[in-house]
Amino acid sequence: MNSAPRTVQVALGERSYPIVLGWETLDAAGEAVARATKATRAALVTVPPVGRRYAARLARSLRAAGLRVHRFEVPDGDASKNLRQVARLYDALLDAGLDRGSLVIALGGGMVGDLAGFVAATYLRGISFVQVPTTLLAMVDASIGGKVGVNLARGKNLVGAFHQPRLVWADVATLRTLPRRQRAAGLAEVVKAGAIWDGPFFERLEAWGPRLLEVDPEVLLPVLERACAIKAEVVGRDERESGLRMLLNFGHTLAHASEALKGYRGLLHGEAVAVGMVFAARRSEDLGLAPAGTAERLEALLAALGLPTRPSDFPRRAYLGALTVDKKRRDAHIHFVVLRGIGRAETLPLPAAEILPPARRHGRASRTGGT
Amino acid sequence: MNSAPRTVQVALGERSYPIVLGWETLDAAGEAVARATKATRAALVTVPPVGRRYAARLARSLRAAGLRVHRFEVPDGDASKNLRQVARLYDALLDAGLDRGSLVIALGGGMVGDLAGFVAATYLRGISFVQVPTTLLAMVDASIGGKVGVNLARGKNLVGAFHQPRLVWADVATLRTLPRRQRAAGLAEVVKAGAIWDGPFFERLEAWGPRLLEVDPEVLLPVLERACAIKAEVVGRDERESGLRMLLNFGHTLAHASEALKGYRGLLHGEAVAVGMVFAARRSEDLGLAPAGTAERLEALLAALGLPTRPSDFPRRAYLGALTVDKKRRDAHIHFVVLRGIGRAETLPLPAAEILPPARRHGRASRTGGT
Repeated sequence: MNSAPRTVQVALGERSYPIVLGWETLDAAGEAVARATKATRAALVTVPPVGRRYAARLARSLRAAGLRVHRFEVPDGDASKNLRQVARLYDALLDAGLDRGSLVIALGGGMVGDLAGFVAATYLRGISFVQVPTTLLAMVDASIGGKVGVNLARGKNLVGAFHQPRLVWADVATLRTLPRRQRAAGLAEVVKAGAIWDGPFFERLEAWGPRLLEVDPEVLLPVLERACAIKAEVVGRDERESGLRMLLNFGHTLAHASEALKGYRGLLHGEAVAVGMVFAARRSEDLGLAPAGTAERLEALLAALGLPTRPSDFPRRAYLGALTVDKKRRDAHIHFVVLRGIGRAETLPLPAAEILPPARRHGRASRTGGT
Repeated sequence: MNSAPRTVQVALGERSYPIVLGWETLDAAGEAVARATKATRAALVTVPPVGRRYAARLARSLRAAGLRVHRFEVPDGDASKNLRQVARLYDALLDAGLDRGSLVIALGGGMVGDLAGFVAATYLRGISFVQVPTTLLAMVDASIGGKVGVNLARGKNLVGAFHQPRLVWADVATLRTLPRRQRAAGLAEVVKAGAIWDGPFFERLEAWGPRLLEVDPEVLLPVLERACAIKAEVVGRDERESGLRMLLNFGHTLAHASEALKGYRGLLHGEAVAVGMVFAARRSEDLGLAPAGTAERLEALLAALGLPTRPSDFPRRAYLGALTVDKKRRDAHIHFVVLRGIGRAETLPLPAAEILPPARRHGRASRTGGT
């Protein structure tokens, strides 16, 4: 069985760093962290359910590598991603005596990474940061690219920074304790990577189908490696999202609107993205940009992974309202990501009303193209 | 009279920007801002006393250049440099519809620049920022170099970022309404620039002496130009303060401790820096690093500008305590900036106890070197 660790490099000049994907590698994290950061003191930030399982092992490994470790927990759930928790962590880091040569380590999913990363980006004007993702979504998406931040009452991710980690250390074996539904949601971003960038990879995903939902290193390690490499390549070419990186928002325009309309309850981010991708692919066909059948292929793969593909039934005006508070709005146009086919995407500046044309009800649209 | 605007370039690759020092140039700011940022919407952040005098003129100039301007005020005083004001501004910017293509303009002194700059650095993960400094200290120091941030209850500037402005637009004529004591305090940083970097410039400052306290463009424009150029050069070589930039902390180790011990009351930052520079110069002599008389020359120039030069009389243990909460501490050593002579500085990692040796009481030390 080939479960040797794989390394994907994110090339950002002096801010370059490796993503290391391995199997049962939590105990080796300490040495890698010490090598990557030269820090002597670390704040390990996590949530209780992840902490119970993995924090002691990670802390032991860090201590064995010579680091002094301080553990901090924030309540589980996206509601913790706020300025109050940020302020609490600042004080806790000060109490623990963390200085400019210290390090913040995020152990957990995207929420922990975003929150702890924002603290690392701003504490003493920025200290070192390491991601130890334990969800599939965080491994292939949230932990890569340096986007960190928190929510405001008025909306998600409205405050943040670009702060690249020094290292992403992903032990894929931790996914065994992640619920199947969460793994499926994470796979939505893997599918996205194929859809926007790599047709042959998309085909391999189609070939694997539901086997992707098993936590099998022989399947997952190469799949996650390729998904990470795609994100790393896009980020490496456009760190601050001024162009190419926007392609990673494929499916996210409708996803963000749906999540907002649902009050961020009952729908996982990856599930919303799955729905949003099918919608965007269908719009791409309607606009004459993608060949007929593109949306159908995408929908079939996502459905095979147990992901939803049809939007929730809110009125069009509700979606339009939610679209226009999206922070990616610049004046009246939204950078909507369309497919030119499986493996090729581009952005199209469109007003919200053209993303959601009035003529047909999204979510119960009759198929116009397709086989 | 030669009061033509002077431009100093801060060379930071794609983050390069000009500092424009002029006389009665507030009305020309709008065009320069529009050219530097391409923004269509601006948040103009200021404090009431500055806003009353200059905000309307600046806003008019911005509007004439095609920008939509939203004005925001924070209470005057360093107490406003906190996370509560940051959160308030985030909400205000959202209410005003500011998006990623918008701009934050700080009009005022260092506090406004630091606070508004931190908001600009983190709102929607960072938007454009312009500084319009109206204090001498902000013109030569705070507005250059991209350090932005706020205080925590536990200490000053403990949270922040490096976020370079797109433009620093300094109308030196605004200094006419700045109290003389504040102008003198700003000159402490000008003296510092000469002391650490440029002996001949220091000599010119000695020649001007108290004339520097008049608001005379023929004196101030060349003097501020050179001080800005020195800071720009240091920042350009070490943006993130990993080495050379630490020289700018000359005099600041004791200054920060004194300010903390005084509860940031009764002592202006520049005044504390003046005292700290004389102290550091004297320590440099005691350590055999600077020639005898270095501290005396520095003290004479600062005294000619009406600045204090002797530390407040707190017990040594109080200073030691204040030194070790300084955020520049890395493990037990502090990067103490010493002079090798007028115009040449270096950092020396020293434990707090050696910066403040027990043998003699600082502040009432008998002169050991000197003429």
